[in-house]
Amino acid sequence: MSSTYGENLKLTIFGQSHGPAIGMTMDGVPAGLGVDLEKLQRFLNRRAPGQNDWSTPRREEDRPEILSGLTDGYTCGAPIAATIRNTNTRSGDYNNLKDCPRPGHADYTAQIKYGGFQDAAGGGHFSGRLTAPLCIAGGMCKQWLEEMGIRIGAHISIIAGNYDEHFDDLNPEFDLVKEDFPVLSNDAAAAMKDAITKARAEGDSVGGEIECAITGLPAGVGEPMFGGIESRIAQIIYGIPAVKYLEFGGGMAAAYENGSSFNDPFILENGVIRTETNNAGGILGGISNGMPVIFRVGIKPTPSIAKEQQSVSLSTGEEVTLEIKGRHDPCIVPRAVPVVEAAAAIAIYDLILGNTQTNRRKNV
Amino acid sequence: MSSTYGENLKLTIFGQSHGPAIGMTMDGVPAGLGVDLEKLQRFLNRRAPGQNDWSTPRREEDRPEILSGLTDGYTCGAPIAATIRNTNTRSGDYNNLKDCPRPGHADYTAQIKYGGFQDAAGGGHFSGRLTAPLCIAGGMCKQWLEEMGIRIGAHISIIAGNYDEHFDDLNPEFDLVKEDFPVLSNDAAAAMKDAITKARAEGDSVGGEIECAITGLPAGVGEPMFGGIESRIAQIIYGIPAVKYLEFGGGMAAAYENGSSFNDPFILENGVIRTETNNAGGILGGISNGMPVIFRVGIKPTPSIAKEQQSVSLSTGEEVTLEIKGRHDPCIVPRAVPVVEAAAAIAIYDLILGNTQTNRRKNV
Amino acid sequence: MSSTYGENLKLTIFGQSHGPAIGMTMDGVPAGLGVDLEKLQRFLNRRAPGQNDWSTPRREEDRPEILSGLTDGYTCGAPIAATIRNTNTRSGDYNNLKDCPRPGHADYTAQIKYGGFQDAAGGGHFSGRLTAPLCIAGGMCKQWLEEMGIRIGAHISIIAGNYDEHFDDLNPEFDLVKEDFPVLSNDAAAAMKDAITKARAEGDSVGGEIECAITGLPAGVGEPMFGGIESRIAQIIYGIPAVKYLEFGGGMAAAYENGSSFNDPFILENGVIRTETNNAGGILGGISNGMPVIFRVGIKPTPSIAKEQQSVSLSTGEEVTLEIKGRHDPCIVPRAVPVVEAAAAIAIYDLILGNTQTNRRKNV
Amino acid sequence: MSSTYGENLKLTIFGQSHGPAIGMTMDGVPAGLGVDLEKLQRFLNRRAPGQNDWSTPRREEDRPEILSGLTDGYTCGAPIAATIRNTNTRSGDYNNLKDCPRPGHADYTAQIKYGGFQDAAGGGHFSGRLTAPLCIAGGMCKQWLEEMGIRIGAHISIIAGNYDEHFDDLNPEFDLVKEDFPVLSNDAAAAMKDAITKARAEGDSVGGEIECAITGLPAGVGEPMFGGIESRIAQIIYGIPAVKYLEFGGGMAAAYENGSSFNDPFILENGVIRTETNNAGGILGGISNGMPVIFRVGIKPTPSIAKEQQSVSLSTGEEVTLEIKGRHDPCIVPRAVPVVEAAAAIAIYDLILGNTQTNRRKNV
Repeated sequence: MSSTYGENLKLTIFGQSHGPAIGMTMDGVPAGLGVDLEKLQRFLNRRAPGQNDWSTPRREEDRPEILSGLTDGYTCGAPIAATIRNTNTRSGDYNNLKDCPRPGHADYTAQIKYGGFQDAAGGGHFSGRLTAPLCIAGGMCKQWLEEMGIRIGAHISIIAGNYDEHFDDLNPEFDLVKEDFPVLSNDAAAAMKDAITKARAEGDSVGGEIECAITGLPAGVGEPMFGGIESRIAQIIYGIPAVKYLEFGGGMAAAYENGSSFNDPFILENGVIRTETNNAGGILGGISNGMPVIFRVGIKPTPSIAKEQQSVSLSTGEEVTLEIKGRHDPCIVPRAVPVVEAAAAIAIYDLILGNTQTNRRKNV
Repeated sequence: MSSTYGENLKLTIFGQSHGPAIGMTMDGVPAGLGVDLEKLQRFLNRRAPGQNDWSTPRREEDRPEILSGLTDGYTCGAPIAATIRNTNTRSGDYNNLKDCPRPGHADYTAQIKYGGFQDAAGGGHFSGRLTAPLCIAGGMCKQWLEEMGIRIGAHISIIAGNYDEHFDDLNPEFDLVKEDFPVLSNDAAAAMKDAITKARAEGDSVGGEIECAITGLPAGVGEPMFGGIESRIAQIIYGIPAVKYLEFGGGMAAAYENGSSFNDPFILENGVIRTETNNAGGILGGISNGMPVIFRVGIKPTPSIAKEQQSVSLSTGEEVTLEIKGRHDPCIVPRAVPVVEAAAAIAIYDLILGNTQTNRRKNV
Repeated sequence: MSSTYGENLKLTIFGQSHGPAIGMTMDGVPAGLGVDLEKLQRFLNRRAPGQNDWSTPRREEDRPEILSGLTDGYTCGAPIAATIRNTNTRSGDYNNLKDCPRPGHADYTAQIKYGGFQDAAGGGHFSGRLTAPLCIAGGMCKQWLEEMGIRIGAHISIIAGNYDEHFDDLNPEFDLVKEDFPVLSNDAAAAMKDAITKARAEGDSVGGEIECAITGLPAGVGEPMFGGIESRIAQIIYGIPAVKYLEFGGGMAAAYENGSSFNDPFILENGVIRTETNNAGGILGGISNGMPVIFRVGIKPTPSIAKEQQSVSLSTGEEVTLEIKGRHDPCIVPRAVPVVEAAAAIAIYDLILGNTQTNRRKNV
Repeated sequence: MSSTYGENLKLTIFGQSHGPAIGMTMDGVPAGLGVDLEKLQRFLNRRAPGQNDWSTPRREEDRPEILSGLTDGYTCGAPIAATIRNTNTRSGDYNNLKDCPRPGHADYTAQIKYGGFQDAAGGGHFSGRLTAPLCIAGGMCKQWLEEMGIRIGAHISIIAGNYDEHFDDLNPEFDLVKEDFPVLSNDAAAAMKDAITKARAEGDSVGGEIECAITGLPAGVGEPMFGGIESRIAQIIYGIPAVKYLEFGGGMAAAYENGSSFNDPFILENGVIRTETNNAGGILGGISNGMPVIFRVGIKPTPSIAKEQQSVSLSTGEEVTLEIKGRHDPCIVPRAVPVVEAAAAIAIYDLILGNTQTNRRKNV
């Protein structure tokens, strides 16, 4: 298995950066679920490149064609399949990428694993472009979750060390996220954009962190152990290129605090059981407790930079200096925000489909 | 799926804390692999409770009985099955746990999900005790990996904010980890033990972080996207109770550094391709690059504390004050060290079994 | 994967014929389902050996111990685990089975696959004894299905060419199956018993066929293509040793009849849609149509016979004459009847757990 | 799961008969495997309609477009994705199929399961047309198996009760299968064609049986129990529409013969271990024994017939007489021959990818 995810859904992401098309198949979706294709397109546009100053100027439409699984706007029970045509197909000489792997990219490991048969052009199957079909699948799951009252939202929480505020982890308000640059605080946006602009000017790049929240998830979703919400989210989140860390709820504070401060006391609020704090990030024993699910994802700086870097020529076996041509995104964090939402939506929808929650109640 | 892990192995962990036995089945292991049962026992002893001052004094032998899959010391091709009998079986009244859930535990979510049918005694299937069968499976995988020259080691990197040194990420030396208290630095050990002792005295608990390294893993292991090393390790690591974060290689630094500093340049060392730094944590595009795999796991403070906590009675619907009786481990981080190693061993062995690395080489 | 079955359930069967114990784990079962252990034991007794004249006289109790997953008679959400201790553990010299494989057994293929590391004693993991844990899992699923009004029953339809009547495929009556020898017709029973007795007297064995029916299954269960009822039943049925064929509904007649006679016309019966005939065996497009599911399973003659047979010595590379000592079951078909029921119950329960049937209705 | 198959491969078949396209994704294939696209096209042409007198005259090109996974004629490690455009897209009024289900088709069960949201046009996802992408996947697997010396061939063994000879089960000769009508005997061909012609003239249809053989499969492939060759082949074969039975090796004879005649004696032939007969169909304990794998698949008569049939109107709740318009294939058995080969190729290649055969040998 590799590019296939899901216990109940079976999602396969296919394609190479410069192949004829990229796309996805998603099997296991019940019939009768509506898909608003315009809304889906707006979601996809959030990850499209070239939308603003601090991103790469190349503009590219990601218009999916739905080949299967939708009839008259509703899922029909057949696997959903969708493709996006690549307009930039294998032009130019990419053999150099095979010979002289780019630091921080999968060029070298692909060469070793696939023995030179990999499609190296534009990073091939390892390209960030493959997050577009992930967003098709996730955008649909997001719509289906919304129908159940479950909402997923994310914002940039760090870029190049510049912090945004966190969501209120007891009550994340997605409407506070700015539309043009997905942060909560305008000051943070300014500092982050400056950092990106500076990195570009220097032929360098910057990384960051995305905070994601899930609201409206009822208690009881998730399975014990390896089927817990954290495990399922983690598997898919780490499938996004460039992710280096993932923390839930209180996260890093776990290594510093005491049990008496880290535990979330149970309280009653208008007759409903809630927790007073949310260091658990909405999850206890892998299962949702009814509080917002909160997690943060660390994204490394774009590995493609204009600055000279050191590499090795696989053919000559000599160290060489590498200069990567072309214009690159000095920071992919803003475009990764919908990707994180998509991944979360797929993980949660998959868990809900296979939910083993009992509908019986024991008399005590 | 819940307590089942693996794409090629099929590992199922079963049992409840106070049921007749806990155990595991592991299907998919090839025949002819030796298992040194004494070495396995020594590995299991590393997570056993009651071995020292700063842990709970309750001493409990975790002696597995192998029911299937081993003949004359070698795997025989049948699924491996092993059990550990519980000596503390359902005594006492645990209905209180169902009525009045402990903060930070799965009592509440289990009640919601299983409708009161869960085995609440001692936390049931959510008990940390279930990491013992994980260690049986992982201890075996660790032996099989060692036969291939792949070694896995871990140490405590933080307890209650007290830092140990990190492994040298270019060359982790497992022999430097102290035997009685698994850290690299004696000073760190002293500070950590003090913190644990203090927490116990206060009826409180502390959390921490474990750093794990994998050496000898050849380049080319791991699959793209959701089958990447990070994805597969993350799914199983988050199956360990109390884990709140997970970072690979440079980890958190990703959100602060530039591409030019975070990228690992390729170099030649005695004719072998290596990277000069290891912010990638040995993984590019989900696939090993031949450098040590490095990751760190955050563990929350033990949720069972002697201090009074606030909870809610599910039967009366009123807020109540909860006092948890008994002696608890004020810090489970030391005992979790072999569990993290076990989880990593299972993930890596599973990936190696299903490795799609080609044995062909394209002429360029 | 090998000894693991299920898309939603994860059932693993473990053990070797002469190992310490055989057993099973079954993950994915919801909490709150009752298990009547006495009823389960009666079900298991139906496959136990030594119960009558025409079977082997060796008597052996198959008393499972439930290690996990049941609390106070109800499933608790943890994986179910159960073992049966082997009383006949590895005594005697079974190296001969490795050197001189028995025709019709897996001795030779196990030797090739496992390189001599297999547990050859009593057939090891390939022994028919491993159907006992399958019956534990299946016996439980059968009880849970009964609670939903879904009943599964089977009878011997052929032994050594002697036919029983078929079930009425529009209305199978399980009460007509005789208790001591599971056939519908007394005449058939007599002829079959004679054939078995004769085979034993000659040091030979006979095979046969089992017909199984599932009633009360509502329309809409089953998935298209590889997740269809036939596909799911077939995978598990062919996991039973000695099965050589499997047919659904009209079965073999498909190759002889015309569409106009093989198609089942839709009719109304008291306002309910049914089919007039049931050549479909209750399944159209892999999905139940509300009619009884009907299938027949062919079982080969027991390969262990007293008669001399020809084999080859793997060590000397010479042809040898093989005489199998001990008393063997001259016909396993009667004991396989509950095994077939168990397998069907597991397949159907697994499908129901993951059923993607929509709860929406489109206005046409 | 539904339209997804494979333990090591992950094959998903998507599309509806009259949707924009049908296709498949296949994840898990190693890099560096050649695909001869012309050879693949010739294989696909074998299932294409309208090629001769006894089939439907509608001619339709099934030209796949490869979207992913192949670069310069070799697999590149990315999932393979291919589509075939539908030229007949949703025209006409298929609501009638929803209201008045065709006997023998999935119209009724689809309506119940998908609540009216299914794509009923042309049978939607249940159409036999979906076997085209199965043949794309299977045709590739067949090429890769051939490279290992494993060949798969099939022929029509029965149509409408007219028998062809069987393959020599010790040495199937694929070259004896006629090209234009895939049988071994010219007499059989004549009788079968007559039966088809007669059925067409009467507005009726006929069914039949296909015999398939696999040669060159080394001993040791296949897993015990549910991962056995029979189990894996059966799951995918029953995913082909219209299959009603499946038998391996001696098949039906199992219910009639004695152990002494059904067991296959082991013999030596030029120093190689073989069996004297092949009632096992090349499989013992689910694992190949080095002899040809032999199985036969029963195909029901095409359910679409011109003759009047009885059905029920779902809207009015009244019995109605149904007349199916259009020209239909009076017998799909000839076109199903390559589909059976494709299914077998996928099952075997999947097993080989995950083969747990040990490379160690125990000294006895």
